[in-house]
Parts: sequence; C-alpha cells; structure tokens
Amino acid sequence: MERPRHQGMAKNTYMRWRLPLVCLLWEVAMIVLFGVFVRFGPEADAHWEEEKREMNLTSDIENDFYFRYPSFQDVHVMIFVGFGFLMTFLKRYGFGAVGFNFLLAAFGIQWALLMQGWFHSFKSGKILIGVENLINADFCVGSVCIAFGAILGKTSPIQLLIMTLFQVTLFAVNEYILLNLLHVKDAGGSMTIHTFGAYFGLTVTRILYRPNLEQSKDKQGSVYHSDLFAMIGTLYLWMYWPSFNSAISEHGDAQHRAAINTYCSLAACVLTTVAFSSMLQKKGKLDMVHIQNATLAGGVAVGTSAEMMLTPYGSLIVGFICGIVSTVGYVYLTPFLESRLHIQDTCGIHNLHALPGLIGGIVGAITAAAATEDIYGKEGFIKAFDFTGTYQTRTPSVQGGFQAAGIVVSLVMALAGGALVGAILKLPLWGDAAAENCFEDGVYWEVPEDEESDAYHMHNPDKPASP
Amino acid sequence: MERPRHQGMAKNTYMRWRLPLVCLLWEVAMIVLFGVFVRFGPEADAHWEEEKREMNLTSDIENDFYFRYPSFQDVHVMIFVGFGFLMTFLKRYGFGAVGFNFLLAAFGIQWALLMQGWFHSFKSGKILIGVENLINADFCVGSVCIAFGAILGKTSPIQLLIMTLFQVTLFAVNEYILLNLLHVKDAGGSMTIHTFGAYFGLTVTRILYRPNLEQSKDKQGSVYHSDLFAMIGTLYLWMYWPSFNSAISEHGDAQHRAAINTYCSLAACVLTTVAFSSMLQKKGKLDMVHIQNATLAGGVAVGTSAEMMLTPYGSLIVGFICGIVSTVGYVYLTPFLESRLHIQDTCGIHNLHALPGLIGGIVGAITAAAATEDIYGKEGFIKAFDFTGTYQTRTPSVQGGFQAAGIVVSLVMALAGGALVGAILKLPLWGDAAAENCFEDGVYWEVPEDEESDAYHMHNPDKPASP
Amino acid sequence: MERPRHQGMAKNTYMRWRLPLVCLLWEVAMIVLFGVFVRFGPEADAHWEEEKREMNLTSDIENDFYFRYPSFQDVHVMIFVGFGFLMTFLKRYGFGAVGFNFLLAAFGIQWALLMQGWFHSFKSGKILIGVENLINADFCVGSVCIAFGAILGKTSPIQLLIMTLFQVTLFAVNEYILLNLLHVKDAGGSMTIHTFGAYFGLTVTRILYRPNLEQSKDKQGSVYHSDLFAMIGTLYLWMYWPSFNSAISEHGDAQHRAAINTYCSLAACVLTTVAFSSMLQKKGKLDMVHIQNATLAGGVAVGTSAEMMLTPYGSLIVGFICGIVSTVGYVYLTPFLESRLHIQDTCGIHNLHALPGLIGGIVGAITAAAATEDIYGKEGFIKAFDFTGTYQTRTPSVQGGFQAAGIVVSLVMALAGGALVGAILKLPLWGDAAAENCFEDGVYWEVPEDEESDAYHMHNPDKPASP
Repeated sequence: MERPRHQGMAKNTYMRWRLPLVCLLWEVAMIVLFGVFVRFGPEADAHWEEEKREMNLTSDIENDFYFRYPSFQDVHVMIFVGFGFLMTFLKRYGFGAVGFNFLLAAFGIQWALLMQGWFHSFKSGKILIGVENLINADFCVGSVCIAFGAILGKTSPIQLLIMTLFQVTLFAVNEYILLNLLHVKDAGGSMTIHTFGAYFGLTVTRILYRPNLEQSKDKQGSVYHSDLFAMIGTLYLWMYWPSFNSAISEHGDAQHRAAINTYCSLAACVLTTVAFSSMLQKKGKLDMVHIQNATLAGGVAVGTSAEMMLTPYGSLIVGFICGIVSTVGYVYLTPFLESRLHIQDTCGIHNLHALPGLIGGIVGAITAAAATEDIYGKEGFIKAFDFTGTYQTRTPSVQGGFQAAGIVVSLVMALAGGALVGAILKLPLWGDAAAENCFEDGVYWEVPEDEESDAYHMHNPDKPASP
Repeated sequence: MERPRHQGMAKNTYMRWRLPLVCLLWEVAMIVLFGVFVRFGPEADAHWEEEKREMNLTSDIENDFYFRYPSFQDVHVMIFVGFGFLMTFLKRYGFGAVGFNFLLAAFGIQWALLMQGWFHSFKSGKILIGVENLINADFCVGSVCIAFGAILGKTSPIQLLIMTLFQVTLFAVNEYILLNLLHVKDAGGSMTIHTFGAYFGLTVTRILYRPNLEQSKDKQGSVYHSDLFAMIGTLYLWMYWPSFNSAISEHGDAQHRAAINTYCSLAACVLTTVAFSSMLQKKGKLDMVHIQNATLAGGVAVGTSAEMMLTPYGSLIVGFICGIVSTVGYVYLTPFLESRLHIQDTCGIHNLHALPGLIGGIVGAITAAAATEDIYGKEGFIKAFDFTGTYQTRTPSVQGGFQAAGIVVSLVMALAGGALVGAILKLPLWGDAAAENCFEDGVYWEVPEDEESDAYHMHNPDKPASP
Repeated sequence: MERPRHQGMAKNTYMRWRLPLVCLLWEVAMIVLFGVFVRFGPEADAHWEEEKREMNLTSDIENDFYFRYPSFQDVHVMIFVGFGFLMTFLKRYGFGAVGFNFLLAAFGIQWALLMQGWFHSFKSGKILIGVENLINADFCVGSVCIAFGAILGKTSPIQLLIMTLFQVTLFAVNEYILLNLLHVKDAGGSMTIHTFGAYFGLTVTRILYRPNLEQSKDKQGSVYHSDLFAMIGTLYLWMYWPSFNSAISEHGDAQHRAAINTYCSLAACVLTTVAFSSMLQKKGKLDMVHIQNATLAGGVAVGTSAEMMLTPYGSLIVGFICGIVSTVGYVYLTPFLESRLHIQDTCGIHNLHALPGLIGGIVGAITAAAATEDIYGKEGFIKAFDFTGTYQTRTPSVQGGFQAAGIVVSLVMALAGGALVGAILKLPLWGDAAAENCFEDGVYWEVPEDEESDAYHMHNPDKPASP
C-alpha cells in the first residue's frame, strides 16, 4: 500500500507496451491508407501551371493557398495552443493537458483528412487535398479537443486515441449528413463541431462516471501560474476565432463578413461574462474559470451564422446572451450536472460548447430563415446559401427548417456515438488511473522531482522534502 | 483591523453591483448604437458581387480582406496577448494585468468602431465597417492599453471602463484633427496612439497620485516566472510590430516598406537596450525590465515614418537611439518622475511610449519634410502623402510643419483629456483599493488558496501555511 | 570563498564594459554598412507604381509582400518565441534562454541581411531588400539559434554575439555554395540551416568542453512550470513549421505543397515520438524532453523535399522515422556523446537538428533523383528544379547527386567553421561562467530576490529564507 499515489496500484496504468502499440499501429495504418488514397489537389500539385491555364487564372495569387493559409495557421494555433493551454488550468495536469491534446490532435488530423476526404474530396479513387482540407481536419479535431475537456484528467492516453478514432469517424458522418444530405450551412461549426463535440464528450464522461472522484478533489483546482498559462489558451482562442469562423467560407465578402461578426460577438461576450462573474459571487470578485471560458461562448454561438448577414449588432446580441448563459452555467449548471446527472465535466464544456453550440444552431436557423434577396442581393442570396442545382428552389424558411434539423441530427449522433464510445472506453483494458490519481501528471509523465510541488507536498507528508 | 490586506477595509472595493451595472450598461448602449448605426461595408456585404462589377474588380482576392486580414490578426494579438502579458510581470497582479486588459480592450474596440466610424466611415447615416475598421479599433484601444500601464495595479475595473470610454472618445477626436484637419500621416500611430496614450495615462496617474504607495512596495516587483510570462508579451509585441506599423498603409509598396523599416528599427533597438542595461548597473547585469520594455521603443519611434522612405539604415539609427533613450529613462527618469513630479508610472510607459512617441513624431516630420519627387517618384510622392484634392499644392516642408503640429495637438489633447478623466476617476465612487492593497489580485479576483504564495506568505506570517 | 555561486569568483563574468562595447560596436557597424549598401527593393520602394507598369502587373496584390508576409510572420515567431521558449526548460536559465536568443537573433538578422544580400540581392552596388530577404535573414539566424541550443547555459552573451557574427558569415558562404554553385534545392533548409547549424554548434560545444560540468548538474533539469514554458516554444515551432518550409518556395503550387507535406510529416512524428518515449523507459512514462523536441524532427527532415512532389504519404513515412530516430537519440546517443566524445549538448540538438537534418538532405536527394516529367508535368518539372539557363540539361539523377554533395559541403563547413569559432570562443576574454555557475541566470541577470527559488534554496542553505 506504499505510495499508491504514484503507482496507481488499484489500477494498472503501466503504458510501456500498450501505448506504443496503439500509436504505432494507428500511424502505420495512416501511412498505408495515405499511400493508397491521398494525393495533392490540383492547386498543390506540380501540374498547377496547366491547371491555371484550364481554369483561366492569370496569377498564382488566385491559388486557394493565399485565400486561406493565414486563416489555416490561426486555426492551427487554436487547436494546439488554444485548446492545449486552456486546459492547463489544473495545478498538476499541465503536461497531460497540453501533451495529450497534442497527441490526439496530431493523430486526429491524419484520420480526419482520410474520413473527410472520402466524403468530400474523392475523385477517381483518390483523395485530393489542399489547404481547405487541412483546415477541415483541424476543425474535426477541434470537436475531439472539446470532448477531451469533459474527461480531462480522468483517462489514459490510449483511451484518448481510441476516442479520437471513433469521434473523428462519427464527426465525418455527421458532417456529411448535415452539409451534403441536409444541405445545411455551418462554416464555423456551431452544430458539427461544438454541439456534436460537446454532447459526445458529455455522454462519454457520463458513462465513465467515477463515484469516488472526490478523492482527487484537492487536485481539481488551479494554482496562480496555472491560471495564467490557461489564459494563453483563452486569448489565442478568443483572438483567432474570427479566423475559425471565416476560414472555409466562400472567397470574398463571406470570409470578410464572418470575421467581423465573430469579432463583434466575442467582444460583447467578454462584458457580460465579467458582469455575471462578479454578480453571481457573494464577494463580487471575478472568477478566472469564467474569464477563461465563458468569454469564448460568443465565438461558438455565431459559428453557423457568422458568414450570413447576421449584422454586427445581431452579433453583439448573440455574444451578450451567451456570456450570460455560459457564466450562469458554470455557477449553477455544472454542480447540478455532477451531483444529479453524474456528469463530471472537468472543463465545463457544457457551458462553453454545448449550450452556446445549440444557441448557435438556432441563431443560424433563424438567420437563414430570415434571409431575403433584398438583404443579400440576387447573386449574394444564391451564393450565400448555395441555392443552385438541386437546391435551386429551396426557400429561406425551408432552409431554416433544415438548419434546425441539423441541430437534432448532431445531437442524436453525439449521444448515440458518445454512448457507444463510452462503453468501449469503460472496458478495463486501457490503463486509466484510479480515482485518487486523477488530475495528476505523475501517472503518465516523468515529472521533475524537486517540484512535485508545494501543492503536492502538502498532502504527501511522508515524502522527504528534498530528493 | 484584521487582515486588511484581503478586505481592503480602508476602502470599499466591493464590486458586486457596481461592476456588473457598468458592464451591462455599456454593452446595452453598444447594442443600441450598433443597431442604429453599424452595417457591413461594401466588401463585407453580401452585395459584394455587384460591388465587384462596379469597381471593375476581376477577382475576390482584390477584397481588402486579403490585403489586411493577416496584419489585423497580428495587431489583435499585440493588443490582447502583447499588452496583456507584458503587464503580468508583477508577482501578484497577473490576473488583473491580463484580465482587465482583456475587459477594457473588448469594450474599447466596440466603442472605437462607433467613434472612429462616425468620423471616417459614415455614409448616408450608417457606419460601414470592414477589416480596416477592425484594425483601427484595435489601434485606438492600444492607446488605452498604454495608459493602463501607468495605473496598473492601482485602479478598479470600473475606473478602467470609465477611462476607456473617455479615452477612446478623445482618441477619435484627436485622430480626426490630425488625419483629417491637419492632413498628417501617422499610419503606425507614434502621435495618435503612443504620444497621446502615454501622456494621457501619465496625467491620469499624476492626478490619482497615492502618497502611501510605499505600503505595497513588496508587491511591485516580479518573481522569476512572472518575468517569463511578461516576455511572452514583449516578444509578441516585438515580432508583430512590423504588422502594426504597416497594417493600414496603402496597398503595395507602402505596406511592404513599413514592415521592413519597423523590422530594422526594432532589431537595432535590442542591441542598444542590452548595452545600456548592462552599462548602467554597477554589477553589469541585465535587467529584465529593460529587456521587456526598452527593446520595443524602436517600433514606437518609427510609427509615423515607417511607411515613408525612411530607408533601412535610417530605421537602424532611430532604433539605436531609442533603445538608449528608453533604457536611460527606466534607470534615471522613472525614479525622478515618481519622487519629484509624483508620477507613479507602474510599467514605465514614459520610457516605452511617451519619449519614443515624441521621437517618432519628430522623425516623421523630418522624413516628410525631406521628401522629394526624386526619392519617391512622381506618382509615389503624391500617393505617399496623399497630395491630392485640397492638398495638391502642399509641399514637403509644409507637410513637415503640419506633422510637427500634430505632435503638439496630441500632447495638448492628452494632457487636457487626462486631467479631466483623472479628476473623474478620483471621485470616491469607483471602488479602487487602498494603498496597501495595490498590486494585489486578491482584491478583485478569486485567487487559488494554496498559492497566495511563497512571495505572499513571507509577509503574512499570521496566515497558516496550508489552508 | 563566500557565495561563489553568485559572483563566479573563479572566472570574471563582469559584463559592464565588455558587453556594451560589443553591442554598440556591432550595431554601429551595421548602421554604416546599411547606410552604404542597403536600399528598398523595387516592391518596397515608392517607385513601385512605375515598377508595376514595367512588370505589367495589374494589381497591388501581386506585390510579393502578399505572397510571403503571413509566412514571414510565422517564421519570425518561430525564431523568437519558438526557439526562445523551447530553451526555457531549464529551471534557472529562462531569462538567458529567451533573452540571449532575443539578443543574438536581433543582431544576427541585420548581419544576415548584409551577408545574404551581397550574395543574392546585390545590384549596381546596392543590396535591394524585400520581404523574402527578411525571411532569409530569419532562416540564417535560425541556424545560430540551433547552435545556441548546444551551448545553452555555458556561454556569456559576448561569446554568443561573436559566434553569431561568424556563424552568419559562414552560413551565407555555405548557402551560396549550395544554392548558386551546386544549384541545390533546399527551401526549408535541412542542409543549410539544420545540418549546418547543428554540427557547427556541436563542434563549438566540443571545443568548449567543460570537464567539471557535473558541478552544476542540479540546475540542468527542469521544474514543472519551466517545462510548460518550453511547450510554448515547441508548439509554435510545430504549428508554424509548414510556413517555415514553404516561406520561400515558388509562388503557387510549391508553397501550397510544401505546407501540406510539412503538416503531414509533423503529425506522424508526434505519434512515433510518444510511442518510443514510453517504450524506452522502464516505467513507461512519457518524458517531456522527447515531447518538447523529437516531435519537431519531422519538420526538419522534410526541409529539403517539402516543396517537391514528396507526396503526403511520403511525408508521413519521413515523420514516422524521424520521431523514432530523434527519441532514440535522446535516450541513447546524447549520454554517449557526452561521456565518450565530450560533446555536452544542452538541448540535444544532435537529435532534433543534426540527425533529422542529415535525413532531410538524403530524402531531398532521393526525391529529386526520382523526379520525372510525368510526375511534375513538363512545365512543373522545369519550375520545380529551376532547370533553366546553364542547368537546362541537368537530369534528376544528376540533381540528386548535387543534392547529396550539398550535405557533404554543409557538414565540412560546419565542422571546420565550428572548430575555428570554438577556438576563438575558448580565449579567456569573453566572461563565461565557471562550471559550477553554469545554467544559472544570476550570473548575467538581475534575478528577483524572493524567488531564487525553491529549487535554489535547497542547495544554498546558508542563504536566509526571506530577504
């Protein structure tokens, strides 16, 4: 019974063979599948000069790379630094937060290139990729990062890799249903990324419910500097969200508009978050948890509608509401979900992604339904909703209906998929830690000896102070 | 009299109703005003296809979005991460630094969109916004972030929101006088942003003078890791400054040139900062305060002239001088200002923004006065200084004179405006902390218990070591 | 013998006159040389309107600025934040890591603009610079940052400035030999930046071998938060590496392709790094050193071939291999190099840059040799390898041979140059610290008193706990 904290005797967290096996297996599979299927799209292929002539382009600047690469890099930062550091707020789980996020995202983007490629970029037996595919792969992985937030600190890296495999698959299916079958617009992913990712993660964490999680309560908080690290994540998510919501919109006005709407929504969201964070506490002091998270809800909630003619003041209203909803969620809903529904949501993704994602879907449906040729212009109207071909005769109100259907489909897929994946992760094979070892990097990481630290020593009196 | 440090008994810092009220009031006003006034500009509006035809543009890539969006995102990072983290150097004020900067900037950009919009983008009763407006709003808020540096740790969030409201207003007026009435060039804002923002902040802090600030002397320093957090801010400001100074320059050569000049000036500035930081200390050791701040002075000082034909070696010279001026300022001027003039300048904005801003204005005036058609080319000359319409006959030397006048106007506006706003902030209504509670996050923030920390415990012996 | 740790009595580390002298001398030389030689290139010059007409360009968007500026900023972040923070992993050398990296890079980019300018942008007695020169200067300095990694914590800032001067010079010569004389392709610098930089640094550290370095062993490790700071560096290098490898490729498909290949290689590299980090440790736990470094090897190793038709699966294979090679290197090679060859490599650049750099050179040679008109298209083939003018008749296999020769030349230049520079740095003039004071910021920096810290106090029992 000595040092159970380190060895997790209650459960076998030994990763030496299992984790390498999964990583290598996954990666070899990627190489084989990429070898069979993935090739450069015409704008990245060395035959581009011929392509240019065919497409009647006069300049290299017309290559999609220059329309989207800056946004791609911003999105990339959001996935790896944004989500990674946002989750470093825990005092003893910084390595896991940023490191496991790194691992799952690096695997996920490869699998997403394949899955999304089969659905959307498959031509004559090959997946042809370009910068837009890279963005979409990052988006897809974003939904896994969101789900990771719910189970942060309670799962092994193997579980995360398994979850990523399944979630990316289901994401691609759900996205295909929404974008192709329902012909729904969702450029910033309120439904496909946030609603789907969050309810998926919440279902998984519900199934992995740990009744004794109280045993690691002392490690579920932050320390002063871990809260500052988390603010790095927050700010990069907040600043680059305009790029996120505009990255795959149509060239020109749609990208431009999506960035402006998102900028406005996020700005408003900060003020109501601060207001309610102070208001809901007896002492009137601000809570870093709210500032780190609820300030971002405005970006989530315009994910569907940002590229539409939501207008700047419409965006402000959405951000205004979501800052309130999200902060109230942190104060009242999260404890309720944990105590009553047994949903242990480490990062509070229900407040940051689930609720704002739903709101975003609804706002998108309303904005679409309210569209008129007057507001968009004749050409703009058709272009904005892609009312061409089969969809030539679809009206805004019908579009609104389909948008609403997209929310429901995303929810169903998330709950069903999350239940399935949760059941798989519950198998006693994957090396997750015992409840008293949750939120503790020492389980899966070599941690520098001399600082297992103030926070740690306090509860570990039998460990000598200097090694 | 127990634990005055925590409760600030001497003053009422209770925010619970006042702060939410101000935030919600401010934000509701924004929504109403945006609803009445703000619409998408032609390049972000869904009627863009028609606009393209009218403007005879052949490709979406001609949308201003693609000329400026990458620079916008860099500027955005400078405002939120750059300024925010630069100010985290204080050992116990990291939450306030990054959090209050977040709050005031998020509010400020909305108000700036309106104020600047009324002056510059007002057409048929509407403010039409695009990516350039977003950049200008960020710029405007930059001047507030600068002023915040002077009063860092000594004001309540309500005071900051009030200051932001007034300072943005005055900024827009001053900017209008300079750019429209005096027809002055100031793309990187040496005058409008730095000179104005810094002297405004210095005036405010002078009026808010706290004779007993010595009581919180122990918290005015840094700790090892807070200095590293601050370096994140420094480096992002330093790296992205070329984007800052080029973001709203004319398309083509002007943006290109502004980036190069700024890059050169900043590089030179680092070397003289290091030289003088070492030289001015008996022990010859480098001081993090100088490296964090004075290295940036070169960017400030080419803010006006970067888009002109300053030339790379001209930029090096400016950077060379400003590294010296700024470092010397930190060593000699800051203590002098505090002891003799009662100007308590937490971040030393006098050395980083005020002096280099003045130098930048002067360099700009000289560079403009020295312009010739030979150097710029016939067309380039007219384009660079916008010598068209009413200004068709203005000569370089006259332009130089107006540039110099711009400095004076900015100074006057800053001093007068700062005095007014300082007087308002001095009213005993806004919940600022007592002198002994300055530079302490615990006043306005929930701070994690177990690390109120090494630095803190030392001076608080009656607090038990483990909670 | 009192407090030798602080004063470095054994050696004179007093910088007060030497460091300022070198900085000012270097900078004055830059100003003079820039004054004589450096001017704006045609795309940054105010005569651009005339240039546009001559080059028959219809839009400002054709200015090279818009093709390359976003990538430039990403590269800039990699050099200053990426390398700077990657090296902050040491518990007591964060100021030195990020601060000295800042200093040497700021000087280096100026000198690189001159050196590379004389070789590549010299026209009618002037060096004409534009955004591509800025990128190349950053690249050149990247090789110095790499070499800095080997000697991190063991050298004075003066030594670093001297090394920068020489290494930039030699870099430019080597680059000229490769790109111009051998007509080798190396857009992402596997050979010119990584192989050259790493073996240069390893040679220097070999010559500066410190037999008693064990005396500062306690400071060679990390603490919890220093490892998180280092992850900031890691992630920015990892995320922006696609920009690094594509920044100076040809407009259009080549930039696009280089970004995709690099993205793929890096993703694969993360998985094999994690696999082998866990596998090679008895306890199966992940080691932050590997995650921080080996995950980046995939970017290094496609530095030459990324812009070629390496294909996504080819990139995955390269990344797969390099994650393994690099991690194995950290576990087995680094200790071997230190104990047997007396190469003390603080950051393990041998594993992150040297070996992957060599692999990158070889992969580039193979990919070039395997090129066919079928794969590239007739025009693409010529464009990709610049088989024009003198090189019109060069075949892919000959090109492959020259590529291989480029590796050898880079190696020879690095070893010879490193030996020379190492010998100069060994002179007892430059103020490096004694062995027991290595890896300690207190030698060259003012360090905040009250946190010379947990880690430090432990070994310094005679120092009172509160100052």
